[in-house]
Amino acid sequence: MTAIDTRTDVTSLYAEVQHFYARQMQLMDRRDFEAFAATFTEDGEFSHSPGQLARTRPGIVAELVRFHRRFDDDPVVRRHWFNMIVLDPQEDGSLRATYYAYVINTRPGSEPQPGPVCVVTDVLVRTDGVLSNRSRHVRQDRLLLEP
Amino acid sequence: MTAIDTRTDVTSLYAEVQHFYARQMQLMDRRDFEAFAATFTEDGEFSHSPGQLARTRPGIVAELVRFHRRFDDDPVVRRHWFNMIVLDPQEDGSLRATYYAYVINTRPGSEPQPGPVCVVTDVLVRTDGVLSNRSRHVRQDRLLLEP
Amino acid sequence: MTAIDTRTDVTSLYAEVQHFYARQMQLMDRRDFEAFAATFTEDGEFSHSPGQLARTRPGIVAELVRFHRRFDDDPVVRRHWFNMIVLDPQEDGSLRATYYAYVINTRPGSEPQPGPVCVVTDVLVRTDGVLSNRSRHVRQDRLLLEP
Repeated sequence: MTAIDTRTDVTSLYAEVQHFYARQMQLMDRRDFEAFAATFTEDGEFSHSPGQLARTRPGIVAELVRFHRRFDDDPVVRRHWFNMIVLDPQEDGSLRATYYAYVINTRPGSEPQPGPVCVVTDVLVRTDGVLSNRSRHVRQDRLLLEP
Repeated sequence: MTAIDTRTDVTSLYAEVQHFYARQMQLMDRRDFEAFAATFTEDGEFSHSPGQLARTRPGIVAELVRFHRRFDDDPVVRRHWFNMIVLDPQEDGSLRATYYAYVINTRPGSEPQPGPVCVVTDVLVRTDGVLSNRSRHVRQDRLLLEP
Repeated sequence: MTAIDTRTDVTSLYAEVQHFYARQMQLMDRRDFEAFAATFTEDGEFSHSPGQLARTRPGIVAELVRFHRRFDDDPVVRRHWFNMIVLDPQEDGSLRATYYAYVINTRPGSEPQPGPVCVVTDVLVRTDGVLSNRSRHVRQDRLLLEP
């Protein structure tokens, strides 16, 4: 891992992070879970629900396979939209990204349905010149409102 | 105020503006109105509805407190999404931004609900090296259709 | 046409492409079809539906006029949102962009309605220093699910 050079201005990294997310989530939405997991570090962590945490690339693939079984009899095209990305350089040379995520689901014969709105917190690192997720934590807005 | 250097290419400012909006609106959505108002100039103007105009940072805070009283008995997480930003340098060294805004509301026990779609026009200036809003005018699409 | 300089890093083009799309689609949503068509090359191609393909700027204007006749008695403000843009340089010096598009429609007296979610593939070229579409192909997600 190389420290991400954030000394001068994280804004210079902004397009790179946007582009990284676009490629990464198009892989997810095509259900190419191996390629998605490869955008994480070897020891990467991914939590999309409270109490759930997948570790390592094979662990992330296994979790995504498990999660998507709910769609086995539910034909749906899912699209992840990320926006309003805030970047904060960390003291260890990593980069924290905090942003909004929105899933839009399309099913046969009906209008697109909004899925949950989430706030996501990533820790990004640079490995061999390219960005990777060291971690991703997803927090659904609807869970913020539970008693 | 320093003139924003737009002589060569406003595209060089694009990521900076996106990042500024992401931080600014995450503050709004956390209802940290003091910090939101601090992203405006001292004499900044903010109009979110026809006939309404808040002036100065304390004036903007007061208006946001007043506006959010409608949510006192309505538990809702609101998220502002900005996108499709067009930047036009102005002759006085400021920068006009014209973009789409979309609010998505999450309430307990229901799917996210779309709020109004808006076109927003900002005038941005650079003060002490950082961007600020000199003004923001929000125009809801539904009001364009009123007779 | 000049080859787009993608040798070093397409990320340097990312903001330029985002800005280009913002201007282009604000023109579409204002129904300024002549100005929209002028963002395509002279021989540009535009396909928004299976089996439909408009060619040349006058051909694109004619198709958009025809398409929008359905709104003659349907007062609606349409907004196109593009996001999750992936850029891939092509061997001929053009740039392929693959991204998500979402239309949000506002009609009098009702909440905004989501239109179709699409994946769009563009080929962009640089002509006289500015980006242009050599082609655009839109694929609606709901059509992916048809038997």
